[in-house]
Amino acid sequence: MGYHILTTQTIKEFLLNIPNIKAFFDDENLTVDEIGDGNLNFVFIVKNQKDPQKALIVKQAVPYLRIAGESFPLSKERMTFEIRALQSSEKLVPEYTPKIYYSDEEMSVVVMEFLSEHIIMRKGLIDCIYYDNFSDHISTFLAHTLFHTSSLHLDSSQKRLFMDKFNSNRELCKLTEDFVFTFPYMEHETNEIEDNSQQEAKALFSQTSFRKNVLKLKYSFMTQSDALLHGDLHTGSIMVNKKETYVIDPEFAFFGPFGFDVGALIANLISAYISHFYRSKDEAYQKWILQMIKEIYQQFEMKFLQLWDAQKESALILPEFIDEATLAEFKKEFMHKIFQESIGFAGCKIARRVFGIAGVEEIRALEDKSKKKEANLRALRTGVTLIENYENIANTDQLIAIIKEIS
Amino acid sequence: MGYHILTTQTIKEFLLNIPNIKAFFDDENLTVDEIGDGNLNFVFIVKNQKDPQKALIVKQAVPYLRIAGESFPLSKERMTFEIRALQSSEKLVPEYTPKIYYSDEEMSVVVMEFLSEHIIMRKGLIDCIYYDNFSDHISTFLAHTLFHTSSLHLDSSQKRLFMDKFNSNRELCKLTEDFVFTFPYMEHETNEIEDNSQQEAKALFSQTSFRKNVLKLKYSFMTQSDALLHGDLHTGSIMVNKKETYVIDPEFAFFGPFGFDVGALIANLISAYISHFYRSKDEAYQKWILQMIKEIYQQFEMKFLQLWDAQKESALILPEFIDEATLAEFKKEFMHKIFQESIGFAGCKIARRVFGIAGVEEIRALEDKSKKKEANLRALRTGVTLIENYENIANTDQLIAIIKEIS
Repeated sequence: MGYHILTTQTIKEFLLNIPNIKAFFDDENLTVDEIGDGNLNFVFIVKNQKDPQKALIVKQAVPYLRIAGESFPLSKERMTFEIRALQSSEKLVPEYTPKIYYSDEEMSVVVMEFLSEHIIMRKGLIDCIYYDNFSDHISTFLAHTLFHTSSLHLDSSQKRLFMDKFNSNRELCKLTEDFVFTFPYMEHETNEIEDNSQQEAKALFSQTSFRKNVLKLKYSFMTQSDALLHGDLHTGSIMVNKKETYVIDPEFAFFGPFGFDVGALIANLISAYISHFYRSKDEAYQKWILQMIKEIYQQFEMKFLQLWDAQKESALILPEFIDEATLAEFKKEFMHKIFQESIGFAGCKIARRVFGIAGVEEIRALEDKSKKKEANLRALRTGVTLIENYENIANTDQLIAIIKEIS
Repeated sequence: MGYHILTTQTIKEFLLNIPNIKAFFDDENLTVDEIGDGNLNFVFIVKNQKDPQKALIVKQAVPYLRIAGESFPLSKERMTFEIRALQSSEKLVPEYTPKIYYSDEEMSVVVMEFLSEHIIMRKGLIDCIYYDNFSDHISTFLAHTLFHTSSLHLDSSQKRLFMDKFNSNRELCKLTEDFVFTFPYMEHETNEIEDNSQQEAKALFSQTSFRKNVLKLKYSFMTQSDALLHGDLHTGSIMVNKKETYVIDPEFAFFGPFGFDVGALIANLISAYISHFYRSKDEAYQKWILQMIKEIYQQFEMKFLQLWDAQKESALILPEFIDEATLAEFKKEFMHKIFQESIGFAGCKIARRVFGIAGVEEIRALEDKSKKKEANLRALRTGVTLIENYENIANTDQLIAIIKEIS
């Protein structure tokens, strides 16, 4: 039987025909609930009726954008890339990947662990919750997923074979090209401009190097195949509690520039930081967010370099090709480029949230319109400043200083 | 019937079963000759016995490297990429592409126009023949093939769909990674070091930025998907006479950095220039070669920019995204990066020919051992100098000055 759309009615039969899932539930009485908050896909929670601790998430892609309906077609093959990316993460960073119980590329479906004790990180950041292990966890996630899928680790054929599995994720790459690097900075029907900050935005967007740098970053996104990216690593793609961290929803996965995931994460932490000027006004929490940004980047860099130092042979470097001192210099320049691009991508990711179709809840859901406008403008100034200066920021201290200076 | 290796015996029947080829020959009496000079593939000339003007080339890949035999396996799928690249060139630059009469990816075979009035350009350059249309022709070839397969022309999905057709050319990409960017600069069994210049080579290769820059260029070759490249554009892949130019043998085709084809061509022209210090000593001819390098690059850049200026919309740039002045600046920086990378790749292509497995005939075939050593060292110094300085050379005049200075 080929692809068919699962419903709360048909899902039980589907699941009970899968031996390891039948064994997991250990009972045929299941409750099925649809979770309504996915933008792209249908997501269900299925529980053992008598023992609701036994619960799984079923996620299925339909051939359109779920929030927009059938009038916005989007190939269901996006789930193929999500499945493949989850399988890669499960291998590389199992501690940060939900356990996968079943996947079926033809059915565009994945069945995975229900993270009942975790919340979407964006919500936690709105509520001023401290996650003291997060920078350690996510820097490990970033270093391991990026390093191990790059030419610094894989051999030449392995890398190209692995790339083949993600090359066809065309539609979602195009969504990013359009909605992160293009539409938000021009007049476009998809933009949502609610307040009267349009003029200030126009002035910001017209600064000399802004548009040129957006094009440079977009070009790098489109053509630079460093490593397998998550592709949409915002704080809504991360489930956390005080102890654990899980990264979900990698349907945008493709081979792109190292800095893109790192930048996406930094951008969303900066948005959370900015939002608290207009939400909690909790300076200690804001300070913690900035400290976390610094720690994440520094730890990511350190862990990435540790993996690289331990790597004796790869597509790029054969043993004895280069002496230690010159290699160290090469690595230093290489890592600095990742740092700069991370900042540039972070800038785009912040700036695009202001007018672009997809805002961030911590700012867009502000009820006081004047606060919202101020927050939007601060975010915009921060994003534009990072984009304009990404090639000139020397280190994380300078980055933090810039974020703090902007008001 | 699946793949089978064609022989001088079986080739007639194979061809006469293809209607348009049968019609082309218009007779069943054919002569078949194998051309012995292909490194990788079997190549036959098939002629109408009574009317030898009616002639075609049949090229078939076998699942090993032809010159090395079955002990050096190499997937015959390389012909798939050659066929696809030829089809792309036929569309984009028909005047510089041999006419294709038939192709069959499963049989790894292509049947094409026999260029009876043209010679391999490398031979012509050895014989001091002037090709006054060449810089115009090849600069058009480069500008059109590179621009039209890039994100500056294609839309996002077209580009990624087109890339899919070349992603699997893994083995030949790896050959370049190994034999252009790695083995020639270290001790390796595949190197051919005939003379006593090893010490001087070691000294050159150990200069500070040389190895670092080779790694940078190799990394760019492995990860930067600007455009569909020929992938092996040396003067042995070009057939010329005084009037016409044809580019052949694109089996290394893949999506790589813009500068790689341009650099390969420049490298081979520099080798020809160097060889004449030890061959013809014809200064006027050497001067013409240098002038041609300058013209090719300048015309390539001009034609590429003309195509870009005429392009109203692409994956990278939507109409009204950017004002003319800023776009002009972006283009200037973009083209300068192509120039720099072309020089870097040219450096690798020259340097690798000295000790690497595949030398260039104009130098390697020099009979006088001391002349050959001098030529090799001059080539090596030129290659290393270009690699060390590729990011600091401002324009073609500086490039030519550097080439002339080295002795």
